Parts: sequence; C-alpha cells; structure tokens
Amino acid sequence: MVKRERWRQDFSGWFNDVLQEADIMDTRYPVKGLYVWRPYGMKLRNLVFSILKQLHESSGHQEVLFPLLIPETLFQKEAEHIRGFGGQVYWVTHGGHQKLDVKLALRPTSETSMYPMFALWIRTHADLPIKVYQVVNVFRYETKMTKPLIRLREVTTFKEAHTAHATAEEAEAQVREAIKIYRKFYDELGVPYIVSKRPPWDTFAGAVYSIAFDTVTPDGKALQIGTIHNLGQNFAKVYGLKYEAVDGKHHHVYQTCYGISERAVAATIMAHGDDAGLCLPPDVAPIQVVIVPIPFKEKETPVENVAAQVKEELTSTGLRAHLDDRDLRPGNKFYHWERRGVPLRIEIGPKDVEKDQVTAVRRDTGERLTIARKSMKKQVGEILKQITDHLRERAKRSFEALVNSAVDLKSARELLKKQGGIIRVPWCGRESCGKLIAEKAEAEMLGEEIGAGPQPEAKCPICSDPATVNALLAKTY
Amino acid sequence: MVKRERWRQDFSGWFNDVLQEADIMDTRYPVKGLYVWRPYGMKLRNLVFSILKQLHESSGHQEVLFPLLIPETLFQKEAEHIRGFGGQVYWVTHGGHQKLDVKLALRPTSETSMYPMFALWIRTHADLPIKVYQVVNVFRYETKMTKPLIRLREVTTFKEAHTAHATAEEAEAQVREAIKIYRKFYDELGVPYIVSKRPPWDTFAGAVYSIAFDTVTPDGKALQIGTIHNLGQNFAKVYGLKYEAVDGKHHHVYQTCYGISERAVAATIMAHGDDAGLCLPPDVAPIQVVIVPIPFKEKETPVENVAAQVKEELTSTGLRAHLDDRDLRPGNKFYHWERRGVPLRIEIGPKDVEKDQVTAVRRDTGERLTIARKSMKKQVGEILKQITDHLRERAKRSFEALVNSAVDLKSARELLKKQGGIIRVPWCGRESCGKLIAEKAEAEMLGEEIGAGPQPEAKCPICSDPATVNALLAKTY
Repeated sequence: MVKRERWRQDFSGWFNDVLQEADIMDTRYPVKGLYVWRPYGMKLRNLVFSILKQLHESSGHQEVLFPLLIPETLFQKEAEHIRGFGGQVYWVTHGGHQKLDVKLALRPTSETSMYPMFALWIRTHADLPIKVYQVVNVFRYETKMTKPLIRLREVTTFKEAHTAHATAEEAEAQVREAIKIYRKFYDELGVPYIVSKRPPWDTFAGAVYSIAFDTVTPDGKALQIGTIHNLGQNFAKVYGLKYEAVDGKHHHVYQTCYGISERAVAATIMAHGDDAGLCLPPDVAPIQVVIVPIPFKEKETPVENVAAQVKEELTSTGLRAHLDDRDLRPGNKFYHWERRGVPLRIEIGPKDVEKDQVTAVRRDTGERLTIARKSMKKQVGEILKQITDHLRERAKRSFEALVNSAVDLKSARELLKKQGGIIRVPWCGRESCGKLIAEKAEAEMLGEEIGAGPQPEAKCPICSDPATVNALLAKTY
Repeated sequence: MVKRERWRQDFSGWFNDVLQEADIMDTRYPVKGLYVWRPYGMKLRNLVFSILKQLHESSGHQEVLFPLLIPETLFQKEAEHIRGFGGQVYWVTHGGHQKLDVKLALRPTSETSMYPMFALWIRTHADLPIKVYQVVNVFRYETKMTKPLIRLREVTTFKEAHTAHATAEEAEAQVREAIKIYRKFYDELGVPYIVSKRPPWDTFAGAVYSIAFDTVTPDGKALQIGTIHNLGQNFAKVYGLKYEAVDGKHHHVYQTCYGISERAVAATIMAHGDDAGLCLPPDVAPIQVVIVPIPFKEKETPVENVAAQVKEELTSTGLRAHLDDRDLRPGNKFYHWERRGVPLRIEIGPKDVEKDQVTAVRRDTGERLTIARKSMKKQVGEILKQITDHLRERAKRSFEALVNSAVDLKSARELLKKQGGIIRVPWCGRESCGKLIAEKAEAEMLGEEIGAGPQPEAKCPICSDPATVNALLAKTY
C-alpha cells in the first residue's frame, strides 16, 4: 500500500513536485501567477472539463464565447461589483503606440460583458430562460502569494454559467440545479466537498447570496472549488434586462451565475495523490492502462507481439491504453507511469505469454493480479471500476476525518490548530455573532452548512440563543 | 436549385445577415472588432476546430496552453518580430490601482511566450523534436475596418502550432507536414485554396520564409486562411534554444510555426452558402438532419410517434439529428432550418406514415426524395455523403472560375477589375520585379505559387528574363 505521509505533512512541496514530475504544469514562466500547461496536464484538464461541459449541455445550457475585453464604462456600472473587483482588475490602456480613449478591463468574470448583450437578446417571456456557459481565461491581479492551479493571475480555465429568468422562484430553482450539477461533477471526480451559504460579508460582489463548494487540502485548509450566486435583479436593473410578460407589462429578469475554475484539477490531484505522486481516477486519466513488455533475451518477439495485441484489444473497447515500447528498463517505466498516476499497469513477460495471461498492477493499492487473456477486457473494466470506487472512498474518509463538530469556540480553535480541517459550530445566524465566532475561533467562516442543521438544543456560542444553522469554520487557501 | 446571386453581388451584406440569422455571432458588442459567439455558431466553431485538433494530434503534436500575458522585456527581444507586431499590440499597464513595473503585452501570437520556455525544455537531441499546439485568443490592435470572423481585434480562436528541430532539413520537412495537414483540413471542409510562398516583403516578422493558404471570397477577393513559417534559427538565437548533439557540441535549434484562426469558419460559411443563407457540409453541421413532423388533424399522434422514432434511429447511428416538435407551422420550421444550413430535412406526414416512408429534402439542391423507412439509415448516410461531395465540387468550380492566368500585366489588371479573383502571371522571382508586377497590376502579390510552375518559355513581364515561378496577384481582404 502506498503511503500518504509526505502528501499530508509537506503538502505544498508534494503538490509542486507532482505538477512537475507528472508533466502537468511548468511553473517557471517569468511572470508571477502565470503558468504553462504541459501536454499531460492539458489532457487531464480537458478530460475534467469535458465532464463539466457535458453536465451543462445535458441540462440545457448552451455554450457561448464572449470577448475578454470590457470597456471601463460598462464594467463600472454595477457599483457593488466594481467595489468587489476594482482592486484586482488588469487594465489595457494602450493599443499599438496609441492611448485608448476608453480603457479596457481584462474580464475578472463576465457579468459586465454578458449582461448588456442579454439585454439585447431578451424581449418577451418567450426569450427566457437564458442558460449559457463559456470556458475562458479570466484575470485577477492577486496581491497574495500565487500558487499554480489554485491562486492565479490568469485563471486559464474558468467555466462560468450565466442565466436569466422570469421569476425569483425560477432563479431559486436554477441555484438548486447548479448545486446538483456541481455535486454530480465532484462526485464523478471522487472529490469530497461540503456545501455552504457564504456569510453576507463574503458574498459575491453584486449577488443577493452565494453558495460555495469547499474541499479540504491534505494539510487541513479549506479550498473553495465552486461558487453559485443568486444575483436577484441587481444586474438586471443596472443593464436594463427587461422582458414583456404575458400581460404586456415589463419586468426585470432574475439572474444567477456559477463558476468552477482549474481548481477542479487541483482538487482531483490532491484528493487522490499519495507519496508516489499523482494517482488519477480512471475517468479523467489521460492514460488509463499502460502496457509494459518485460522481454527476456531471445523471447523479445512474442512478448512484444502480445503487448501490441493487448494494447489493440483494450483500445478497441474504448479505453485509453498506451504501450510503452521505449528502449528503457521496465523499472524505469514503472516509475515513470506511477508518477503520472496511470491507474493500471499491465506487465507482459515470457511467463505471461506462455500461460496466456497478463499481470496487472493497481496504482492505488500496489496490488498485483494475474488475469487470463481471454477474460482480460472484462476484468480490466472491472478493476478500473474498483479503482474509481476505492479512490472515492479513500478521499471521502480522509475528508471526513477533517470535518468535525465542536460545541464551543475554545475546542473549535484547538481542533483547528491541531489538525485543521473544517469545524461545525452552532450559530444563531446573526451577522454580528458570526463575525465574533470566526474571530474567536481564529478562523475564517465559510458560511452556513447546506443540507445539515444544528443539533437540537444547540446554542450560539456568542449570544446563547438557540442555534438555527451550523457555521463552518476553517483556515482557508 | 437555390441561387447564389446576392451571395456574389452583395457578399458583405449576405455574410453579415448569415451571421445574424443563423445565430452564429452577435456583432453588437460595444467595442470595435470584438464579437460574441452565439450557441449555434459556437457548435460550428467547435466542430471545425475539432477536425483541426485531430489532425494535429494524429501527427504527433501535443496540446499545451501558455499564458496570454507577455512581459515587454521578453516580447521585445526579437527585433524583426517587434517591428512587425509592435504597432498592433495591446498593452496592460495597470493591475488594480497600481502601475505595473513591466508592462504586459496581450499575445498577438505566442513565439515570445513559448520559446523562452522551450529553452528550458531542450537539453539534448533526445528532447527534439518539440511539436506543440494551442487554441487560444490572440489580440491585434487593427486600425483597418474590422469584420466578424475575418478581421478582429480579439481573434477568439487561434490554433497555433510551434516546433523545434535539430536540423534545417527536419524543419523543412515540418513545413511540408504542416502544408499537408492544412490541405487535409480544408479538403475536409470543402474549402478551396491555393498555396503560395509569400514574397519577402510580406514574410512573417522573424521568419526565413512564409507559406500561405488563400481562398477567394464570393466577391472575388483573396482571403488568407492559414500561414506556415520557417523560422530558421532566428528565434532560437535570441531566446537561447540550444541542444547538445550526439558529439557533445551545442547547436541552436531550427523552428517552424503555423496558424489557422476562425477565418476557417468564415471560409466554410462563404464557400458553401447561397441566397437562402448558410449551407453547411455535414461533417461540421451542428445539426445534420432535422426532422419536421407535418401533422394533419386527427392524425397527429402517429406522425409524432414516427417522427420521434426516426430521430432515435438516426441518432443511434451517430448522426446529429434534431426533432423540431415546436408548435409552429411546418413552413416556418423549414425556413428556420434552411437559414441555419442544416444539410438534410426529413418531413413526416400522414401519407409518409401510411406508406412507411419519409420525405427527405436536400438543403444544397432543394431536391425532394422519397425514402423507404426500412432503408432510411443507410440512405440518409449516402445522401449526406452526396451533399458533402456536391458542396466540395460546387465550391471548387466557383473558385476555379476565379483563378486565372495572364501573360501580361494589362490583361491581369483588367481581369482583376472585371471579376477579381487570383491571377497568375509569370515572374523571374526577383524582388524588384515582383514589386513592380504588383504595382502595375494594381493588386497585392500573394506570392509564388507552390505546386505549379510557369508555362515553358514564359517571361517575366518586367525584365523579360525567363520566368521561374508563377506570381499570384489579387485584391485582398
């Protein structure tokens, strides 16, 4: 069984090594907060985001693509929004050798480029709902420490969905649909999460309220991996998004938006990795099965032939199989693919050829299995399924060990100091109490937990009134 | 047969109408040269570029993703390159409320962001060749008139490939491979083209020479739809791209790069369209077959059931089929899908149900066909193939009518005035003669034709020396 010690104790070092050794990213680009996706990482990214895109398509979202550049005049219309993002916006001021008349923002998110166009698209109730999404690069002038895939100045891969509805109820229903989509997405990746409603002081700039998905890093910090915002009519009023109802009257629309960035890739890497490096769920592994021939002298040809056949057989079932026929020692190849998190390795030596079998080695457990050639296709499929389940379960166990409850703030603070993670404490729901809870626990408040309430009789640790919700506390990335 | 009169005589108006009516782009974004991809256009774009990506993957190119922002210090290292692009670069000068220490260019193309990283990736000959590509947004501060899909300030969809090789011969071979890939790509789209080597005064900034693909718009102008550059060692020397050869000596690498933008989508639209609007080749049509039920009163149910079955049957064969069951008159539906270029419409009325048949109508020719249900799957496949072939042939004929030869510059000039297109004239190959040829023909010189030489005994119309190549002349976009 592969260990997860360095993974836990030196997560930051472990993570950077994985990005490099598994050919995910090059972190040496000479501008702070900008990184280069390398080929293997790019394949992983595309597989992860194709699941997310598919979930959007199948629930009636349509893909669009809006410009990166937003004129200052449009960008600054929504006052809350500019207050929230103003300090982080990159500004284009010159084109060629000329100063621009109106400076242009690199989108930090696309409400202000999209909604003026929505205003042109919406005439009557028949034009609603609008449900669109795009996968684009967005920019934030981060002043904090940047970190590949996690805190970026160019978020290279931002899936942002934007919707418009006739009624507040439909917008509420859309928030629920978005939560469902994000649950499915992270369930498929085997990434554990907790869902909460962000507190008022941490709501998206311009939103009525914000829902967030958080996971926990191996070193016990909360990491936000998805957000969903109910925008109410705030943007609709600023950008004039009105529709004519059946009765001939004009109303502003209700809107939602929700986004997931390449942190989804980071979360997948950290949820399943171990001290041997990357360990990928088969669904998103660029190579699901690697075949390594182990030729002995004078028996090269049959081994190589069988290896090629095995590759063909597996590929024909739709698997991403790769034959490593490089002129290297098998041990070097094992190491190479282990670091890249390939879920299953198939070794083929002279004995395997003789006995009409293959030897399979699981990346997640290290377990060796002997499989008869004639049942190989079926069994490989089953093993990959077992790997998926095992990774999901293991990640869930690690996560659940780090999500705990406390009834008072002293024990919350001590738990956070000792092992980090996310701590539930009962909360009356008042903003003033919430701020004090976070302060006294020396942590951030993620928000109130969605889908679970406080224990009966639980009291707010500040005012001692009955608790109405669980507050989630954590140190955050 | 649908006509192509407006398509030819008012191409610009025709093109803008198609973009709007077929839901390709919204051209009302309030910044010059920036446009919005709408859902149907986005699907078309993705299908077109998935062919191009597949051609790169299957020839050993690996997808990567580099940052958009390039520090001025890096960008300005290659002197020719900055001379070529300097006047067109957008500059980010501020992050939040701060002025940046080093201003950042929005990439107009990625040589200057990629090659410094290549320098880190290349150590020995074993690291070569490098063959990577990315599909990204690039920016040019165009001062000319902008036009959706054709002349943009944000090119939203730029496939750029970049390679590095040990020898000049390998770089030459890579140029040939790139030409082959681009030929296959445009052949699959049924877009006709001519390939030429751009003249020295129109070579890519920093390249040794440039190869270009041009097509002809319906109104007779040449449109560049792909370029391939042999960069020699120019960038390698500036950015220090060196490898250690087998003999232990260090050499600079040889490089190539080649790009295709969303003009590929424009070229597809214009090659096949007609006066009824968009007309798409089945390979890239977001909907390949639309099924329209024609219910008569009291016979609604069987018609609707059969329509749903037909949709299922076609979808199960891997076709992109859509059942239009909206509550609209069939005529409105016909018009709607005709404008969107759906290659084949299947109508199902009570008579069709009775006779166990369907009625198919081709978008390209308007031809109506009666097809027995039991052979439908097979026949629909065949008809789509015929449509593909017919569109390719028709586009080719239109193109060839516009590519002509002239032996003297007066007839070249007159032909260009009369009908536009591309005119071949014999050329000795000297730069000074070439410039005069273009000037006297009152046209641009695309370059010397690749794959075809001048007639025997042909003479350069300027110096009367024997012609060595065909110069291609045209008015250009």
